[in-house]
Formats: sequence, structure tokens, C-alpha cells
Amino acid sequence: MTDPASPSAPPAGLLPAGLMDLLPPEAEREASLVEALMAGFASHGYERVKPPLLEFEDSLLAGSGAAVAEQTFRLMDPVSQRMMGLRADTTPQVARIAATRLGLEARPLRLCYAGQVLRVRGSQLAPERQMPQAGIELIGSASPEADAEVAAVAAAALAAVGVAPISLDITLPTMTPTLLEGSGLPVERRQALAHALDRKDAAMVAALSAEAGALAECLPSLLAAAGPADAALAALAAAPLPQAAREIADNAAAVIAAIRARAPGLRLTLDPAEFRGFRYHVGVAFTLYGPGRSGELARGGRYLSLNDEPATGMTLYPDAVLRAAPPAAPRPRLFLPQGTPEAVAAGFRAQGFATIAALSPTDAPRALRCTHILRDGQAVPLPKE
Amino acid sequence: MTDPASPSAPPAGLLPAGLMDLLPPEAEREASLVEALMAGFASHGYERVKPPLLEFEDSLLAGSGAAVAEQTFRLMDPVSQRMMGLRADTTPQVARIAATRLGLEARPLRLCYAGQVLRVRGSQLAPERQMPQAGIELIGSASPEADAEVAAVAAAALAAVGVAPISLDITLPTMTPTLLEGSGLPVERRQALAHALDRKDAAMVAALSAEAGALAECLPSLLAAAGPADAALAALAAAPLPQAAREIADNAAAVIAAIRARAPGLRLTLDPAEFRGFRYHVGVAFTLYGPGRSGELARGGRYLSLNDEPATGMTLYPDAVLRAAPPAAPRPRLFLPQGTPEAVAAGFRAQGFATIAALSPTDAPRALRCTHILRDGQAVPLPKE
Repeated sequence: MTDPASPSAPPAGLLPAGLMDLLPPEAEREASLVEALMAGFASHGYERVKPPLLEFEDSLLAGSGAAVAEQTFRLMDPVSQRMMGLRADTTPQVARIAATRLGLEARPLRLCYAGQVLRVRGSQLAPERQMPQAGIELIGSASPEADAEVAAVAAAALAAVGVAPISLDITLPTMTPTLLEGSGLPVERRQALAHALDRKDAAMVAALSAEAGALAECLPSLLAAAGPADAALAALAAAPLPQAAREIADNAAAVIAAIRARAPGLRLTLDPAEFRGFRYHVGVAFTLYGPGRSGELARGGRYLSLNDEPATGMTLYPDAVLRAAPPAAPRPRLFLPQGTPEAVAAGFRAQGFATIAALSPTDAPRALRCTHILRDGQAVPLPKE
Repeated sequence: MTDPASPSAPPAGLLPAGLMDLLPPEAEREASLVEALMAGFASHGYERVKPPLLEFEDSLLAGSGAAVAEQTFRLMDPVSQRMMGLRADTTPQVARIAATRLGLEARPLRLCYAGQVLRVRGSQLAPERQMPQAGIELIGSASPEADAEVAAVAAAALAAVGVAPISLDITLPTMTPTLLEGSGLPVERRQALAHALDRKDAAMVAALSAEAGALAECLPSLLAAAGPADAALAALAAAPLPQAAREIADNAAAVIAAIRARAPGLRLTLDPAEFRGFRYHVGVAFTLYGPGRSGELARGGRYLSLNDEPATGMTLYPDAVLRAAPPAAPRPRLFLPQGTPEAVAAGFRAQGFATIAALSPTDAPRALRCTHILRDGQAVPLPKE
């Protein structure tokens, strides 16, 4: 224990940077949102798994887990004398379960999960080091319909908790690398182009690709096409894409058509030149946005699961969903004077009241934030002070 | 990363001892039980807080946290260069919140929580190293009614998820130490008596207390009194207790009377000589048992919170509740052939079906464990194979 008087000791109750308490009523709201999202997933056949918070780092950081290796807290297991990691992402754990304990289940396998993840450092924009996640993984199908399903199911779950309107941003992380690699340009020029594309510097992209044949026609138009999905698909269709890139474009068109069939009301944008995001995405990648400035609510996309099994999934961020969702109506609180019969109290709870039982004659209904008080068997509203 | 071919590498997918995956359908059942327990707590005015999984060890291990210090995983925070702990119990965190961020809220303060705890080592009987907890803390009331409330609310929450019958075992962890300390016996004799009481060795207790005045009358009768609460209270009433012990007995009688008023159907036992359990209990201590051999479902009791504020609480063990609760009816799974209109699918989800959309013509309803298939707009049961 640290001497609390020592100068380096934090004030009592101080928490490490990026770790925080969720207080009433936010903690209950977040939990309710998570369970509502999970109920939405379950209604589409996604079955819940609950991997442990800690596991051996060599399984935790395999596959897509490598992307979060640097952000993973590690600690020694005194039982096995092996290193364990505290999960920074749940998808690698679900991939492990799908490949091992559920390896013999029929495909496509639909799994969902909810829980906390931790990371070693926050960023300036996202200082949190513990975050809730709730997500779905659809494993064993390579079809565009599978990508469309995870997008539609995630959007429907958000809509069910009152987040509207939702827009889905689709990117094709393999498109730009495929075009650059097939361009025949020297490595330095490709890197410069990638850098310019990353900054969306249209003039520089045009200059750098000017003498690169088909690329000179493709890249500027793809960069300009970012926006509503139909216009972006039209730009892709018109661009003189080499075969490998054409297949990526055709797949994007198929995914978008399948999403339209599953989620007709969803607003879709496509940014065909964007290639940032998790390194492990091998097909479409998704970001779901809520209204106004609520920011990213979910990310996902297609990846290769363990044993190179095709997979697609979506991770929702309940802390962001909490900020985007409409506030819940507060629960009315009924003060029960001492001696209230239990059956009477139970009756009011069944009506939706939280009952606050007086434990002594000095318990004060207003101070305890009660909205009602029991008088003559009736829940009488307490006027606000 | 460990070389997977090295002889010390675990097989792929192996988890550390005591850490496990919860699979379908258990993961969903456990989550549903936790939320049902939390809904019960909320209906009695307990408001949810969510402390982080990690915090500085000097706050995590303060107060009642000292009892789990040896079981707490520690890791270095690279941001602050200070040691953090991975919580092994949630009560110390709730105490911190009550004393700091909710320090100015009116008392009694009712808080509840649900989440995971981790411990360094499992035991032979309880090998788990990650366990769910769901609990309530009632802070700022010293009255027997407060102890009765946490017992009654916990029992009601268990009853609401179908666990019946429930019995509440009450112990008085301060009774035996109080009697021994006031006995005037030499330290060695007191230690021998404590040891004999711990083993419930009635003959040895009688022999060791034979010449110890009032103790010779008290201890054997208290040891024998363990059982239904009324008989045990009668034995306490008849025993020639010194003043300090008499106050403990009177408080136990008051708590039991208050529990009877709040939870008339609850089966109560009292073991007045038992003094094992968490070191920090300063009044009654509780253990809730389910039917048959389902074991301990919850533990709790009265303690001193930070700043010596009186407090009482109960921690439920959802993994044990899961084993004691009746199984839930499985959700019917309806297979939707490709091209099923979204509105039709939504209608069946609203009826309680999980809808399993075919993603390709080869998706097989039986292999996907569907119970029904959509034919001519109807959910047709699939006969079992």
C-alpha cells in the first residue's frame, strides 16, 4: 500500500486516466442498451458466447488479434507461468471459439457477444481505456449476403434502441492497394500515392498518377466518387479497372444490392478509395454513424477467421450508442413509510415503481429523490421543490 | 509469440486454468439471469453503478478490499507508472464511489452492480478464476431494517428467476470473538477454543470451557443451537451472555424479526457460534442457499464502509444461480429461404422467433438447428430427425 501522505500518491478515489465509473442513471441505461442490442442480434439467430477477459496471449493475439497486440495489457499467469493478455478486442476470441469448440457446428455460424475490452493507452480523441463492446460474427459464408446481413442486423439493433437516422459508410480497403500493386509504378511513387490518397489530396493524386496509364483515369475519379452509394457505384462502373479491382467493385455492388434488400431504409455511402481501417479486412469494411455528431457507433467488415474461414462481423460501441440514443424515461420512485405491508409494496413494483422503503423515521422522501409517497394506499406525486 | 511447435506451448485454443468460455445457450441464460436480478434490485430503488475493471491498487485494496488483496491480479499502468489491480471483488469499488462521487447524496444510499471479477488462483472446490457478480449495497443505515432489506431484496430477486425454495443462513461473526475476548481465559486456551468451535467439536468445546464460568454455559449451547432461527434465538435468549454478547444477540433478533416482516416466506437458519467468513463483517453475515445441492448463491452482511460509514450488502453469484435456476425454454428458430421479404421476417421476429436467413441455396435448415421453416407464409415445424 502506498502511504497516502506521500507526494506521489493520487487523491483518494482518483482513477487511472481513461478508466471511469459510470454512475446512475447512465450505468443502467448502458446496460439496458446492451441487452436491447443483444436481443436484436438473438432475434436474427445470433447465439451468445462469453469468452473470458483473460487468456493466453498466443491465442488472444492470433489472427485479427495481431492488430491490437500493442494495445493489449499483459500479465503473468502464476498458475501456468505463461503470459496472458487482457482482451483489447473480442473478435479474436470469438474466432477461436468458432474454430475450436464450435468447429464442428454447421456453417454459417452466427455468434454474438457483449463485454468489456481494455487497452493499454487511450488516444487524445478517445481517452477511454475500458470500453464496452457488443457485436456479431457470421462465420463460414463468403457471400455478399453475409456482409449485408451483419450490416442490416447491426443497423436494425440500433434502430430498435431509438438511434435514427443511421448511415452506413462502406469502404473497400483492398481496392487502393490492388490498384497500386498492379500499376507497375515504382515503390516510392506508390507510397507517395498512398500518402496522397490517405490525405484525400486530389491534386497530388492526379499529379502522381498522371503518367500511370489506367490509374490516371481511375484514382482521381474514385477519390471524387466518395458519397452516396449509387453515385459511387456508377463511378466504379465507369472507371477502367483492371480485373482484380473490377472484382472488388463487383463484390461491393453485390453487397450494396443485398443490403438494400435486407434494410431498405438504410442510408448508404461508399468511399471506394479509402483504405484505412483494420489491417485484417479482406473485403468490404463498414462504419455505422448515428445522427448529428454522435460519431462512430459500430465498425466491421469481412475478414479471414482462423483456418482461413471466410467471416464477416460488426462491433457496436455501446458507450457511443448511449450518447446517440434518446434518454429513457426515469423510473418513478415511491417512498414507503415504515410498516408498509410487503404485498402493497409488491403491487406498486408490479406497476413499474421503484419502491424506497423507509428504514428509520428520519428517512426523507425528497432527499431520496422519490417522486411519489404512499398515503392511504395511494401513490401520491410529490411536488417538485 | 511462443513457437507453437515448442514442447511448452499449449494446444491451440487451450485456456488458462479456471478461465473458460460460456457457450450457447448458457451465455445467454447467464446474461438474462443477471439482468433479471438487476431488474429486481432496481425495483427496490437500487441504482446501478459500473466501476472500471482496473483501478489503482491503493484504492482497490482499501477497506474491505484488503480481504482479497492476495487474490488480486496486479499490473503496471504505463501511463501513470503506478500499480493497478484487476478487481477481485466489487464491494470495495462501490464503497469508493459512495464515499467520493456520491458522498453528498442523501443516505441511505442504495446502489447495485453487475460485472466480472478475477482472482489470481482458484481453489480445488471452486477452480474458476473469473466469476460474475451481481450485488446490492445499502450505505448509511445502521438499522436492523437495513440488513433485513438486503436479505429480502436478494431473496426476492432469486425467487423472481425461479430459484425456490431459498434459505437464508445467518451467522454472527462477532459473537464468538466477543465471548472469547471477554472470557479472561489465557490466549492459548482461547485459540484452542476457537479451533474447536471452528471444527464444531462439541466435546472439545465443553472440555475447554468447563472452568470458564459463564462461557461454560454459553458456548456448548450456542454451538448446539445452530439450526432454524426460532430455536437458535431461544437458545441465545436463555444463555447467560455478558453485555457485549447480549447486544449482538439482540441485534440478531431484531434483524430476524425485520426479515420476517419483509420476506415472510423465507426459510431462516441461525448459527450463532459460527465465526468464519469475511474478516470485515461487523454485524450479521448472510449466506443464501438454493434448493438441493445448488450451493451458495449469495453472501453478504454488515460492514463498515469508507469513513466508517455503516453499510450492509449482498453479492449474488450468477454462475451458481445459473445452475440452480430452471432452464429457459429454447427460442424457436425459423429458417427463411432466400428472397423472403424483410417485412415477413420482422413479423415472425415480433412473435418471438429467431429468424435464420438463408445466405446461399445450400444453407441447411436442420443443420442450422432450425425448429421451423417458412413455407407459403407459414412457420411450419420441422420434424425432429
